[in-house]
Amino acid sequence: MSSIWVYQACPYSLALCLITKSTLLTRPGRCWHLWQREKYMRLAYQRFPLTTSQYLRDIEGEPFKPEHSVQPVFTSPPKEGEDPFNTKCLPENLSWVARMKDGVIYVYKDAAEADQHKPIENMPAPHYETFIDDMNFLIALIAQGPTKTYSHRRLKFLMSKFNVHEMLNEMEEMKELKLNPHRDFYNCRKVDTHIHAAACMNQKHLLRFIKKSYRVDADRVVQNIKGKDVTMKELFANLNLHPYDLTVDSLDVHAGRQTFQRFDKFNAKYNPVGASELRDLYMKTENHIDGEYFARIIKEVASDLEDARYQYAEPRLSIYGCKPNEWAKLSGWFNKHRVFSPQLKWMIQVPRIYDIFRGRNFVPHFGKMLENIFMPIFQATIEPHANPELSIFLKHVTGFDSVDDESKHSGHMFCTKSPKPEEWDIVKNPSYSYYIYYMYANITMINQLRKARGMNTFQFRPHCGEAGAVTHLLASFMTADNISHGLNLKKSPVLQYLYFLAQIPIAMSPLSNNSLFLEYAKNPVLEFLKKGLIVSLSTDDPMQFHYTKEPLMEEYAIAAQVFKLSTCDMCEISRNSVLQSGLSDEEKTHFLGADYLKEGPEGNDIRKTNVAQIRMAYRYETLCYELNLIKEGLKTD
Amino acid sequence: MSSIWVYQACPYSLALCLITKSTLLTRPGRCWHLWQREKYMRLAYQRFPLTTSQYLRDIEGEPFKPEHSVQPVFTSPPKEGEDPFNTKCLPENLSWVARMKDGVIYVYKDAAEADQHKPIENMPAPHYETFIDDMNFLIALIAQGPTKTYSHRRLKFLMSKFNVHEMLNEMEEMKELKLNPHRDFYNCRKVDTHIHAAACMNQKHLLRFIKKSYRVDADRVVQNIKGKDVTMKELFANLNLHPYDLTVDSLDVHAGRQTFQRFDKFNAKYNPVGASELRDLYMKTENHIDGEYFARIIKEVASDLEDARYQYAEPRLSIYGCKPNEWAKLSGWFNKHRVFSPQLKWMIQVPRIYDIFRGRNFVPHFGKMLENIFMPIFQATIEPHANPELSIFLKHVTGFDSVDDESKHSGHMFCTKSPKPEEWDIVKNPSYSYYIYYMYANITMINQLRKARGMNTFQFRPHCGEAGAVTHLLASFMTADNISHGLNLKKSPVLQYLYFLAQIPIAMSPLSNNSLFLEYAKNPVLEFLKKGLIVSLSTDDPMQFHYTKEPLMEEYAIAAQVFKLSTCDMCEISRNSVLQSGLSDEEKTHFLGADYLKEGPEGNDIRKTNVAQIRMAYRYETLCYELNLIKEGLKTD
Repeated sequence: MSSIWVYQACPYSLALCLITKSTLLTRPGRCWHLWQREKYMRLAYQRFPLTTSQYLRDIEGEPFKPEHSVQPVFTSPPKEGEDPFNTKCLPENLSWVARMKDGVIYVYKDAAEADQHKPIENMPAPHYETFIDDMNFLIALIAQGPTKTYSHRRLKFLMSKFNVHEMLNEMEEMKELKLNPHRDFYNCRKVDTHIHAAACMNQKHLLRFIKKSYRVDADRVVQNIKGKDVTMKELFANLNLHPYDLTVDSLDVHAGRQTFQRFDKFNAKYNPVGASELRDLYMKTENHIDGEYFARIIKEVASDLEDARYQYAEPRLSIYGCKPNEWAKLSGWFNKHRVFSPQLKWMIQVPRIYDIFRGRNFVPHFGKMLENIFMPIFQATIEPHANPELSIFLKHVTGFDSVDDESKHSGHMFCTKSPKPEEWDIVKNPSYSYYIYYMYANITMINQLRKARGMNTFQFRPHCGEAGAVTHLLASFMTADNISHGLNLKKSPVLQYLYFLAQIPIAMSPLSNNSLFLEYAKNPVLEFLKKGLIVSLSTDDPMQFHYTKEPLMEEYAIAAQVFKLSTCDMCEISRNSVLQSGLSDEEKTHFLGADYLKEGPEGNDIRKTNVAQIRMAYRYETLCYELNLIKEGLKTD
Repeated sequence: MSSIWVYQACPYSLALCLITKSTLLTRPGRCWHLWQREKYMRLAYQRFPLTTSQYLRDIEGEPFKPEHSVQPVFTSPPKEGEDPFNTKCLPENLSWVARMKDGVIYVYKDAAEADQHKPIENMPAPHYETFIDDMNFLIALIAQGPTKTYSHRRLKFLMSKFNVHEMLNEMEEMKELKLNPHRDFYNCRKVDTHIHAAACMNQKHLLRFIKKSYRVDADRVVQNIKGKDVTMKELFANLNLHPYDLTVDSLDVHAGRQTFQRFDKFNAKYNPVGASELRDLYMKTENHIDGEYFARIIKEVASDLEDARYQYAEPRLSIYGCKPNEWAKLSGWFNKHRVFSPQLKWMIQVPRIYDIFRGRNFVPHFGKMLENIFMPIFQATIEPHANPELSIFLKHVTGFDSVDDESKHSGHMFCTKSPKPEEWDIVKNPSYSYYIYYMYANITMINQLRKARGMNTFQFRPHCGEAGAVTHLLASFMTADNISHGLNLKKSPVLQYLYFLAQIPIAMSPLSNNSLFLEYAKNPVLEFLKKGLIVSLSTDDPMQFHYTKEPLMEEYAIAAQVFKLSTCDMCEISRNSVLQSGLSDEEKTHFLGADYLKEGPEGNDIRKTNVAQIRMAYRYETLCYELNLIKEGLKTD
C-alpha cells in the first residue's frame, strides 16, 4: 500500500552539495554522522533503523545484510504458572573476572589475564579516542552554516509535507480506522515510557495511602533514631500533624506556578509536607520497614494499570553509586516484596550527583562511583547463583537512565585531555557528555557479556535535551537507544534532522515541561510528530503533575485537546511508545503484530495498532525520500 | 478579614463623568442598567447580588432592605427513607385557569375572569413595551463610545489589580489552604453546571453500553417500523454492523478537527455510527422501549458521580414545543424508570427550531409552540393531582435553557412592531431576543404561581454568547439568572463590565469551545476569572469532547494545566459552580457553609470550600470599589 500522492524531485540539491562538499563530511563515500550512530548502537546491542542502515550500505557500495542489525534482548513475561522470582533457571556461575580500567569494566577469563589487561575476545569496548574524535566531528557539524541551512530547510519541508498529507488523506485515514473492527484508541496498547517510580502514584493516591497506613499501623515502629524506636504516631506527632487533617494542599507534592524554571523547588516537592521523613517512609526502598509501603504503593499503581488493561509503565528506580551495596539492597527489596507486575518494566536511573558524594567524602573519585553502579551487575552476570536476588531483578530491568537538572552548567569540556574516571578526584562534577560516555561504555560491556551468556540486555535511555546545552543531544545521538524530553532539538536543526533520519524515539512529557521548563502550547511535541520524529507521550511524575486517576490518559487527552490530534495521531504515538519501550519481543509481537520489526506499512498490523496504513506508508516514503536525497547528494559529490 | 493592601483613589473619574453625563444614562439618580436587571430578576425570583443592590439603593437615596431581595426555591433532597416519587405530598388542586395572551400565560381565578383578562393579583407580568424600551436603552449604551472606553479601562484595571493581588498574596492564599484541615480541591464540591443529558456519558461508556445491551438483549424488539417488529439483532443487521466490531472510531460521536466552526457537523455527531436509529434507541426518552436504555445510561453516569462523591451534575433534557404531550411523555419516562439521583438536578432545554416545526406544519404559529412548552407546567402547578407524574418531575427540575447554534443569523429585529407570538405564523425563525423574552416572561409567570403555591421555582439559564451577535448577551443580562458560555463578552467591554457588576454566573466549557468555536489557549475563562466574573467549569457534552472516565475532572485538570490555575483558583471555580447551580438551599448550606448567602468573606466557610478568605476579601473589596466609583460618579453628575 502506498500513500495517494507522489513527490517530485526536490529543489534542494544545491544545499545538499553544500554539506557534502564541506571538508567535514567528505570522508569519502560515507554518511559519517549516521554511520557513527549505527556503529555505536550495534556495539551496545541497541537499535538502528533497517531502512537507514540499508541506505548507508548503498552509499558505501556495500551489500546490505539485515542479519547484521542487532536487537536488544528483553525478558519475556512469565508463562502461566511460572514464578518470576524463581532462581532455579539462572545460568551457571563462571569463573570470569570483571575489573575496571580507565572507568570501563572489562571481563577477563581469570585474574592473570586481568592483570595483563587481556579481556575476553568478541567483547570490544568503544574506543575512547575515536569516540572523542567522532564527537568533535559532530560538534563541528551541528555548528556548520550550510548544514544548518540544509537541515532547517528539510525540516520545514517535512512539516509542510505532513500538513499536505493531512489535508489530502485525513479522511482516508479516518475511514481506515472506522473500518478497523474492535480496535480503537482506548484498546490499543500504550506504554508510559518515562515515569519515576518515586512519583508514579498521583497526589490523591499518596494521600489516601498515608491516611490508610495511619489508620492501620499507627503503633508500628517505622523509624529508629539513634537507637530509639519511633512509631508512626510519634513520627506524625513530631511533625505536628495528624494524617486525618492532611489534604493534597498540605501534602504539597504538586508542582505549581512556583516550580517553573525552578528545578530545585521541584525536587523539594518529593518530600510530602516538606518532610524528608515521610519521603523516607513512603517513597524509599530502604528504610526501617524495608520499603514495604513504597512496594505496596507501586503494586497498587500496577493493579490500576492491570485494571485499565491496555496501559503499561516503565518505572525508574534509583541507583546512586554512592555505596557498593545499593544493588543488593534494591534487589532485596524487589524480591522481598515481590514487586512484579506484567504491566511494569523496570528502569534504573542514575543521578549525576558525583559532586555531592565527593564533597561529603563518600567516594574517593568518579571511577569508584562508576564501579559502585556497574560492578555488581557484572558480578551477578558472571555468577548469577552467588547473587540470586540481583540476578532475578536484573532480568526485569530493561534500561538505564541518567538524570539531573540539565540546566546546571558544568565548566568541564569532555576531551582527550579529560582525567580518566579513576583520576577524577576533584569535587567538581564532570560534564553531561562525560557521564553519558562512561555510562554508555559500561552498558556496552555489560550487554556484550549478557548477550554472550544468553541473558537480557539493557538500553541506555537518558534524560536529554530537557534543558541545558544542545551538545547533550549530540552525546545521546551517539550513545542512547532513545531519550526522554528532547525539547532542545528545537534549538538545533541539524540534530533534529539527524534524530529524524536515525528515527530515535523520544519520550516526551509536555505536562512535566509545562510545570518546569516550557509552556504547554509551546511544546514541540506536535511539531516533532508532524515532521516524523518518533515521539511517545509519558507522564514523568504523576504525583507532581497530574490530577486524575489515570495520569497517562490525562497526558494523552490534554495533548489531543490542545494540539487537536486525530485518532490516527494518537494511535501512532501509542504505537511509538510500545516500540520505544522495554517490552519483550513476545509482548511487542502480541501488541503490534508479528511483523513489528519490519519498517514501513508492512510492519504495521492495523488490527492491533489502529494506525492507518496510509499513515505508515507516508512515514516510510518520507524517510526513504530524505535518505535518498543524501545518497544522491553524495553521489554527485 | 481584609486583603493585605488598599487601593488609592482611581484616576478614571473623568471617564466616569463621560457616561454619567451622557443623555442615555442621566435618568436622574439611578444606575439604569443594573437597576433594570435587578427589576427583572426580582420579578422572576432570580438572583441579584445583595452588595450591588445595596449600592443601587444608596445611589437612589433609598433605604436598603435585605428582605426585598428574592431567592429561587429548589426542592430539598429527599430525607432518609423518603421516596422522591411519592405523589401524596403534592399540594391540592385549585380551580384556577391558565390562558395564553400575547405569548404569555396568565393565571386567572376562573374562566370568566380569564375572558376579561383579569389575572390574579400579585402575579405581575413583565411589561412588554417597557422591556423593549429597556432593551433599546441597553443597545444604545453598549455602543456608546465613552461607556466603552470607561468599561474597557475598568476591566483592564481589574485585570492588573488581580495580577498584583496574585503576586502579593499567592503564597498567603496557599498558606491558608495548607492550614485548612481535611479539605482540598478533590473533596470540595463541584457541579457540572452545563451538560446535555443526551451526551452526558463519554464515548467509551456509550460504546460499552451498546455492546452490553446487545449481548443481553439481541432478540428484544426495539423498533416497530410500519407495524413490523424489529429486534436489536435486525436493527444492527440493517445497519450492516455487529456491535462486537464497534469501536469508538466507528461509533464516531467524538468531535474532531472537522467540527470546528461547523455546528451542523457537530449536531450530526449525536448519531452513533451516523445512524439516527441508534440515537433513538440509546439516547431518547421516547422510543419503542420507553427510553429504558437512556434511563439506564443516565443512572450509570449518576452512579459514577455518587462514587466520586463530591461531583454533581445538572443534565439538560429537551422539550421541543412541537406537541402538547411532550411533558407528559418526558415525565412519564422520568417516573417509570425512576431516574433520580441525589447527584443530579434537572434542567429543561428548549431548542430554537420553530422554523423547522412551522416548515413541516407541526405548529400553526410561534404562540402554539410557547403554549406547548409552558401550558402543561401551569396546569400541573394548578392541579398537581391531575398531573402527578409531571408534578413530581417538576419538583426536580431547576431551570430552563434555550439552545441552538447562535451563529445562525436571524433577520428579525425584536421591537414593539414585532408580531405577537400568536401572530408569528411565518416560517422564519424569530430572533434570539424574541425567544429569550418570551421564555423569560413565561418562566416569570410560572415562578410567581409556583412561589404562591409553595412550590419550587425555575431559573432561566440560556446558552448565550457562544457565538453570534453580542446582543444575545444583552437579552440575557436582562432576563437570565445565569448563562452558559459567554465567550462573546470578550467582544463587548460594556456588557463584560455589567456582567461583573451584576456578578452573573457563567458556565464555561473551554473543551467544547475548543472543538467548536475557539481554540483552547484563546478561551477567555482565565481572563474572566481574574477580572472577577463568576465563572464555573462545565463539560457541555462529554460524549463529544472528553476522553477520560471523569469528564468534569478532565475539564478542571486541563484548565489547571493550560492556564496554570492555583488550588485557590480551582476551588473558587468549584464554589462558583455550586452557587450557580440549582442545588437546594439545604445542599448549598451543607456544601458551602451556613452563611453562603452572605457576600464577601463572611459568606465563605473555608473548611467547606477551601477558598482562601484573603481571596474572598479581595473579590468583595474589588466589587465594592467598582460600585462605589459609579456611586461617586453619579453624585458629581
